[in-house]
Amino acid sequence: MDISVKRLTPSASHEIGGHACRQDPEDLGNVSSMKGSIRISEIFGPTVQGEGPLIGRPTVFVRTGGCDYRCRWCDTLYAVLPEFREDWALMTPAAILTEVERLSGSTPVLVSLSGGNPAIQPLAPLIEQGNKKGHTFALETQGSVPQSWFAALDWLMLSPKPPSSGMDTDWQALDECVRAAAGGPHCALKVVVFDEDDYAYARLVARRYTDVPIYLQVGNPAPLVTHAGPGHVEADIAALMQRFRWLVDKVAADRWFQATALPQLHVLAWGNRRGV
Amino acid sequence: MDISVKRLTPSASHEIGGHACRQDPEDLGNVSSMKGSIRISEIFGPTVQGEGPLIGRPTVFVRTGGCDYRCRWCDTLYAVLPEFREDWALMTPAAILTEVERLSGSTPVLVSLSGGNPAIQPLAPLIEQGNKKGHTFALETQGSVPQSWFAALDWLMLSPKPPSSGMDTDWQALDECVRAAAGGPHCALKVVVFDEDDYAYARLVARRYTDVPIYLQVGNPAPLVTHAGPGHVEADIAALMQRFRWLVDKVAADRWFQATALPQLHVLAWGNRRGV
Repeated sequence: MDISVKRLTPSASHEIGGHACRQDPEDLGNVSSMKGSIRISEIFGPTVQGEGPLIGRPTVFVRTGGCDYRCRWCDTLYAVLPEFREDWALMTPAAILTEVERLSGSTPVLVSLSGGNPAIQPLAPLIEQGNKKGHTFALETQGSVPQSWFAALDWLMLSPKPPSSGMDTDWQALDECVRAAAGGPHCALKVVVFDEDDYAYARLVARRYTDVPIYLQVGNPAPLVTHAGPGHVEADIAALMQRFRWLVDKVAADRWFQATALPQLHVLAWGNRRGV
Repeated sequence: MDISVKRLTPSASHEIGGHACRQDPEDLGNVSSMKGSIRISEIFGPTVQGEGPLIGRPTVFVRTGGCDYRCRWCDTLYAVLPEFREDWALMTPAAILTEVERLSGSTPVLVSLSGGNPAIQPLAPLIEQGNKKGHTFALETQGSVPQSWFAALDWLMLSPKPPSSGMDTDWQALDECVRAAAGGPHCALKVVVFDEDDYAYARLVARRYTDVPIYLQVGNPAPLVTHAGPGHVEADIAALMQRFRWLVDKVAADRWFQATALPQLHVLAWGNRRGV
């Protein structure tokens, strides 16, 4: 597996302080959809999914470039910020599948569509062509841009962003994402929890979508890249697990037995490295 | 959560060396079934499940005492060896449920039936009475003693023991366990993997039960108690995660994309402690 690490070199124009400004998804989406191609930040694997209901499951990651959010603690800024755009490739669905199959040895595999926000890319043809070759698809998005083609996925992971992210939730858009998955893919919610406010937000999310299983994910206090520049390659495992124990105690005390609490497995195993 | 640690004081008559001898499950089972009561080692929680398909799920553990196996690396010898029998309580299903509900605040909860080997206990009335109160039940067993009441479970985790355990697999019994779950509970296989031989065994298990999802669990090289006496309270996280990376590399190289590879979450979070 490629574990090379790229450092973030932030430009002044994109430094974020305080409440982040949201990007217009239409601007980001049209660039690629005009050409029928998909903006790709990286394709890597096989490795295992590190988060949510598919934790531990072998997968090839297809990470798209571009995002309508600017989360304070984003750990994949190299797939978000426009100054990394020259690192992104415009690829056709066929070219993406060729790379997936090179990595999987042409064996059908779970493809994890991540970002950035993959929902702003025109992914329907990729899913359709991939399904024909036996691949299955999981997509993770913050749920800000609903798409009818979500119904063609095997898994839709909706990860609305809590207060610590600095982003506001568009509840109507999130509602539409949940509806887009009805009768189609397995749908799950995932909320990153750093603190009490995030935990309260997760409770709110769970009350709004009682039929959708929810995963609470311990926030990573030391990501690879930060808005202020390079972060820590070595993960602070002790701090992560301390926060995990706190989260389990909260869930237990509140008798919130429908939630699932998990750390990021890939961070425990490989630290804050790319490509794993 | 109770994290008190009991030390193993092995008696000479039960020290195990080389290939372990198996205990007769009938002998162990009849003692409790005669009284209609269940031999209990410990009841604790709520905490989260640390293994397999329910990893991260809040649960109350009901650990039974007594086992027909003597695995070399068993990490719950206090629920296995007869010299701990005086620590075990004979409890009625009603008494067990009272304790579960004290811990859960009377909120319906996932009850994890573990051991020892819980399959040698008369658990059908407990499951039936618990279901009426809204509780769900997951049972984990090595699959050496099939029971018709497995069909009443919500989850049946079959954990046949690999070569490193020193135990032989009774394939016919395991077949019957899988059949007992047909049409009833979710069924999953879990195989502990320490080394290449264990990995080859897991591949064999997967080929025999192609319809049952399989979870590969990284062996814990430093359990709390060992057959030779006290082990390590502090888990060797670095060694665990090194073995996990090795396991992921194996799965990826073999394109074994149906398997799920996981460490023991509770060991990462709490070390080799009891009651978590």
